[in-house]
Amino acid sequence: MNIDSVDFFYAAMPHVTLEADGSQDALLVRVTAGGYIGWGECEASPLTSIAAFVAPRSHGVCQPVSASVLGERLDGPEDIARIAALVERNSMDLLQAAHTWSGIEIALWDLLGRMREEPVWRLLGYTENHPKTPYASMLRGTTAQDTLERARAARERGFRAVKLGWGGYGEGSVADDADHVAAAREGLGDDGVLLVDAGQVWGEDVEAAAARLDALEASGAVWLEEPFLPDAFAAYSALASRARTVGIAGGEGAHTPQMAENLIDFGGISFVQVDTARIGGIGPALRVARHAQARGVTFVNHTFTSHLALSASLQPFAGLADHRICEFPVEPKQLALDISVQHLALDANGEIRAPDAPGLGIDVDLDAIRPYLREVEIRIDGAPVYASPTATANVRKSA
Amino acid sequence: MNIDSVDFFYAAMPHVTLEADGSQDALLVRVTAGGYIGWGECEASPLTSIAAFVAPRSHGVCQPVSASVLGERLDGPEDIARIAALVERNSMDLLQAAHTWSGIEIALWDLLGRMREEPVWRLLGYTENHPKTPYASMLRGTTAQDTLERARAARERGFRAVKLGWGGYGEGSVADDADHVAAAREGLGDDGVLLVDAGQVWGEDVEAAAARLDALEASGAVWLEEPFLPDAFAAYSALASRARTVGIAGGEGAHTPQMAENLIDFGGISFVQVDTARIGGIGPALRVARHAQARGVTFVNHTFTSHLALSASLQPFAGLADHRICEFPVEPKQLALDISVQHLALDANGEIRAPDAPGLGIDVDLDAIRPYLREVEIRIDGAPVYASPTATANVRKSA
Repeated sequence: MNIDSVDFFYAAMPHVTLEADGSQDALLVRVTAGGYIGWGECEASPLTSIAAFVAPRSHGVCQPVSASVLGERLDGPEDIARIAALVERNSMDLLQAAHTWSGIEIALWDLLGRMREEPVWRLLGYTENHPKTPYASMLRGTTAQDTLERARAARERGFRAVKLGWGGYGEGSVADDADHVAAAREGLGDDGVLLVDAGQVWGEDVEAAAARLDALEASGAVWLEEPFLPDAFAAYSALASRARTVGIAGGEGAHTPQMAENLIDFGGISFVQVDTARIGGIGPALRVARHAQARGVTFVNHTFTSHLALSASLQPFAGLADHRICEFPVEPKQLALDISVQHLALDANGEIRAPDAPGLGIDVDLDAIRPYLREVEIRIDGAPVYASPTATANVRKSA
Repeated sequence: MNIDSVDFFYAAMPHVTLEADGSQDALLVRVTAGGYIGWGECEASPLTSIAAFVAPRSHGVCQPVSASVLGERLDGPEDIARIAALVERNSMDLLQAAHTWSGIEIALWDLLGRMREEPVWRLLGYTENHPKTPYASMLRGTTAQDTLERARAARERGFRAVKLGWGGYGEGSVADDADHVAAAREGLGDDGVLLVDAGQVWGEDVEAAAARLDALEASGAVWLEEPFLPDAFAAYSALASRARTVGIAGGEGAHTPQMAENLIDFGGISFVQVDTARIGGIGPALRVARHAQARGVTFVNHTFTSHLALSASLQPFAGLADHRICEFPVEPKQLALDISVQHLALDANGEIRAPDAPGLGIDVDLDAIRPYLREVEIRIDGAPVYASPTATANVRKSA
């Protein structure tokens, strides 16, 4: 069969704030081939990712993503890899292409899984679907007491792991950060998994990051995430060599598998966090998972949006029993919940699993997201280059 | 003064082909502040880069580039660095932002230079403007004899250096590639500088690249450029350790200074090729030039478009006497020539220099590019998000 269509659905909350909350909008991708439908999701900046799909070509290796996708043969996973190589080559100089392609790639896996009636993790070669321990991401509180209460509340909701970050972490004094980390540990209890996310706040300043290590290690934090800019390998490596018990985590910014692998090989991280919706999709994420496994590094998903994106991000390490921690969007905006019919819920052990249903096992609820849909129209020299599938028409057609 | 406006001019040849020729379109950026005007250029995919400037925000660290630029204070180079840090933070999750920002950053340097009546290279701290030896980039010929004649013709035009690449190099047999490299050497003469560009053709296949080393070294090639994907540091490093006299070159894909530095530090390259219009502009390119100098690596510009872009790309290493080779767009499309009033020409020694005139020393010829301008209009939910400055109106206003 061949890829017949690729449609983008840009959905957003009525008011998108400056919070570091990635669930405020979404770019869903629907692909059809041979009468089958697959869905995926691209991370961030829907308009820009749509533009990368339809932009007029600049030259032979700066073609829009559409040029490598539409009409292509799709009979099995090897075709997904083949198309990925086409995109890599033909859109070599189009930076945004990786994010656009990621959502399409995910939709192709979903489509193949639905066609073959197999969950994607089986198509990837895994024979088992191991449970993951989701962590609750929470902003640092205004006061340490506030942070303590947030951690306790997460624990009471069934989360055995909590991640503290943003909301000022790393921007104030070392002592203040230490208070918040200790408070999070107290709220979480001694047996909880405590994670801390610096959100790139120290740029390339190794000393600023190193000054927080003692407090992190005293509180038994498992990782310190993104202390630096994504490509600051020298800083990552210097910090990793100074940490004793806390691991350094990073990788969510990787838009090629090599970038994530380099952060392992040259940055000395212990946890590689891969956003399937940025790195080029499920195939490249699987490659990183294998590389991590071979290097004794733990693979973790990075997911901040819908349960469609969550399912996609679990597939690459579903079969790895020892890679247990997973990111779980704890308090997403209503949009992110409304996107899907099914949701991955915590079981009695506080764990989740990738669905066992065909494809990604998540159906998109087009009726529910209709109120959030934004209509994009792009014209060049007056001629239409792109127009969103009309919300109503498409909802009816694909329902 | 404050940044009052940022306007994009998207210009393209009437027919953009699949050639690997980056001069077929251009995205020019005009910035105004305090009554001064500066011009810059972004590399590749104009529509996508415009979208990254105007896209609705997705969240706090996925804001459009405009959010960090418009209205910002601009009194000196330190403001450019400050705004760059804002873009880096506020557009952290917007991949295309680096390309969009690059053109703006270049325009800000041009504007400051014009205001202070100093060439940009002086604002960067250089006291001298050293000549560079431009190389002529040429596609591999169909036959070795054809390649020989192309190299000879470039020499006759005054070029002391020639780069052979694309057009099938690396895709056929090792013997065939060897014939072309030897033919290029013959056409160029014994004393010419011979460079070879593989254009990422071997992906991550070290053996395929290594099989070409003997022929390259027998012909005295100075560098082998981009044998691999931009982030394939492990492959780069493995190949570099097997090369004896030919240096490995790369870096044009870097969209942060750290990426280029990592290719030096972990990929073992001998020549770092920086595209100022991709890496975030002149400031980050200067940083890489300093890093290269400290590591004994040669800095080279990557430039494929206009002489505005060429001037911008020369500034970061204008003051480095020992970093002499430079890329020069030899046979650009007419558009790329029509963009600027002035052009950098080879002197009697076959060398060029960055202009000594204020700013970048290159005036954009809006009258000349008017026929190439493409009008972009973006609407979301029917409301205008972006409209190109109307060609005629703007040409008049800014002439």
